[in-house]
Amino acid sequence: MRAEALEAPAAAERLLAENAAEVRSLARFLRKRPPAFVQTVARGSSDHAALFGKYLFEARLGWVTSSAAPSVVTVYGARPRLAGALVIALSQSGASVDLVESLRAARSAGALTVAVVNVEDSPLAHAAEVVLPLHAGAEKSVAATKSYLTMLVALAQIVAHVEEAPDLEEALPLLPEQMALAAGADWSAGLELFEPAGDAYVVGRGYAFAVANEAALKLKETSALHAEAFSAAELLHGPVAIVGPGYPVLTLAPYDRPYPQVVELLAGLKEKGAELAVASSEPEALALADAPLPLQRRFHPVLDSVLTVQAFYPFAEALARARGYDPDRPRNLQKVTQTR
Amino acid sequence: MRAEALEAPAAAERLLAENAAEVRSLARFLRKRPPAFVQTVARGSSDHAALFGKYLFEARLGWVTSSAAPSVVTVYGARPRLAGALVIALSQSGASVDLVESLRAARSAGALTVAVVNVEDSPLAHAAEVVLPLHAGAEKSVAATKSYLTMLVALAQIVAHVEEAPDLEEALPLLPEQMALAAGADWSAGLELFEPAGDAYVVGRGYAFAVANEAALKLKETSALHAEAFSAAELLHGPVAIVGPGYPVLTLAPYDRPYPQVVELLAGLKEKGAELAVASSEPEALALADAPLPLQRRFHPVLDSVLTVQAFYPFAEALARARGYDPDRPRNLQKVTQTR
Repeated sequence: MRAEALEAPAAAERLLAENAAEVRSLARFLRKRPPAFVQTVARGSSDHAALFGKYLFEARLGWVTSSAAPSVVTVYGARPRLAGALVIALSQSGASVDLVESLRAARSAGALTVAVVNVEDSPLAHAAEVVLPLHAGAEKSVAATKSYLTMLVALAQIVAHVEEAPDLEEALPLLPEQMALAAGADWSAGLELFEPAGDAYVVGRGYAFAVANEAALKLKETSALHAEAFSAAELLHGPVAIVGPGYPVLTLAPYDRPYPQVVELLAGLKEKGAELAVASSEPEALALADAPLPLQRRFHPVLDSVLTVQAFYPFAEALARARGYDPDRPRNLQKVTQTR
Repeated sequence: MRAEALEAPAAAERLLAENAAEVRSLARFLRKRPPAFVQTVARGSSDHAALFGKYLFEARLGWVTSSAAPSVVTVYGARPRLAGALVIALSQSGASVDLVESLRAARSAGALTVAVVNVEDSPLAHAAEVVLPLHAGAEKSVAATKSYLTMLVALAQIVAHVEEAPDLEEALPLLPEQMALAAGADWSAGLELFEPAGDAYVVGRGYAFAVANEAALKLKETSALHAEAFSAAELLHGPVAIVGPGYPVLTLAPYDRPYPQVVELLAGLKEKGAELAVASSEPEALALADAPLPLQRRFHPVLDSVLTVQAFYPFAEALARARGYDPDRPRNLQKVTQTR
């Protein structure tokens, strides 16, 4: 897991170079004929990458994005009305039957179908009109790392080209180097806080909420730690009820638009006595933490969430070992999961 | 909380009668001009009601449904492309600023806007073109019950009239009586299982997954029990890693299309040594349970999920007391939460 997480920067560099022409051509088409809306089709980590895509598409392009519930097609037998939509399936293996069936239904309904996959010779890739490979190389660890990170990069590359936004277009080529830097972040302060934890929350907002979902899943998979992700806003609509003295909360607070609200939330959680681990580039947020998890200085408001996960993965790996688990052999899981 | 949960059947009866004309007129319009897609705007319990709506709209009408992330509008300042969409905001109070702002943005973008609210004289109701009141009467308990249940009924009423499906149209008038029956279900077997629990999963699929989210939130709010909901399929894509001997899982297994897969999952969880509480009308599913939570006999595949929550609320109330909490005074929460 650790080795594969550290391969992500090189994979991202390959992806940005090798997919450039295909993404440019897709973006040209989408600018001329913007989709009525976007649907993402994915499971597990890939579905959390899709959520990052939702924030990108909605906040930067105004394209409303829906996450498919595969059972709608595979169990209820419905045929969603997807003419004019952009449907993006995301999967490391490209082998999950329910995703393939959902993508086929979308294509026959008249959607433009894109597969973002690591295994190019896979049923999901064959079912799609446009294939964007992740170029991540074989991923053997059950806990996805480099495939998740490259999915985020692939989605950001699409949006950068559609939007023709100088900020993203200029930042993306510099991202792999920044990822390599993030992979070396020292988050050891978090080990002591989470080593004895029975359960925990992971909190973020916007792009950072999207990646908080991936962090929570990874803590479950590798550390058998029941971590659940909430947006900083949603937390206040109920889930905060279980936060009392000593309750561990990992807050992802890269510098982005929601940053002020996240700092306000941190102050409120501190008052309730929560044990706070805070991942941030900002001294102000880190100062509120019982366990500060430093991020390098601000790079880009969207891509700093990518860097947060890149910094998180080696931490998750070390935490699993500290808790007595082998992160390369999560309980009860196989690499490719078949569901319908 | 208990008293208000028991008022839900009467509220549902009022809602079905008093909203009939308005819903029929909305449905006539929607049949003539089906929306390009649906967006729901909600937080907390209401957002879980919206998820029930997503399954209804997608599985029965083929209308792809997206849950709005309010921060897209309120924090990132985006203007989602919603012309031709149906946008439904759901809220007990109708007072949350971020929902009002999102609904206004949708209306000015050309969406057809509907507010499903309990407080008719509220900013959210005033911002919408169509208002469907919940007729639930004042809801004072911080933990929503009758407002959540009537939201499910309001969404089912819309779909029944749009689809003109005899099964739903015939079942809905009988629903209040069935709800009253469900409220008397004997789930005492579950108290012993969850009284000492540190955390738990709540599992369902399809409509039952939608309501599993509400059950998990209510366990957090009233019992300070960290319960998290997963679809029976998604569970296998990672979260099952923390399920070992003695791990408590509440499975909602009303009789619906996904029922066979849910029973298969139950058998797998049993093998892992999980402590299973199972809510079902079916002897086969109940027989797999350490704590069987009986539901009355099958009524309707969609509406049986409504009955499951109706049976769950008094159980949640009793569990809170057994764990030493006052369900009417959840920690850290107010009735109306303001977020942006």
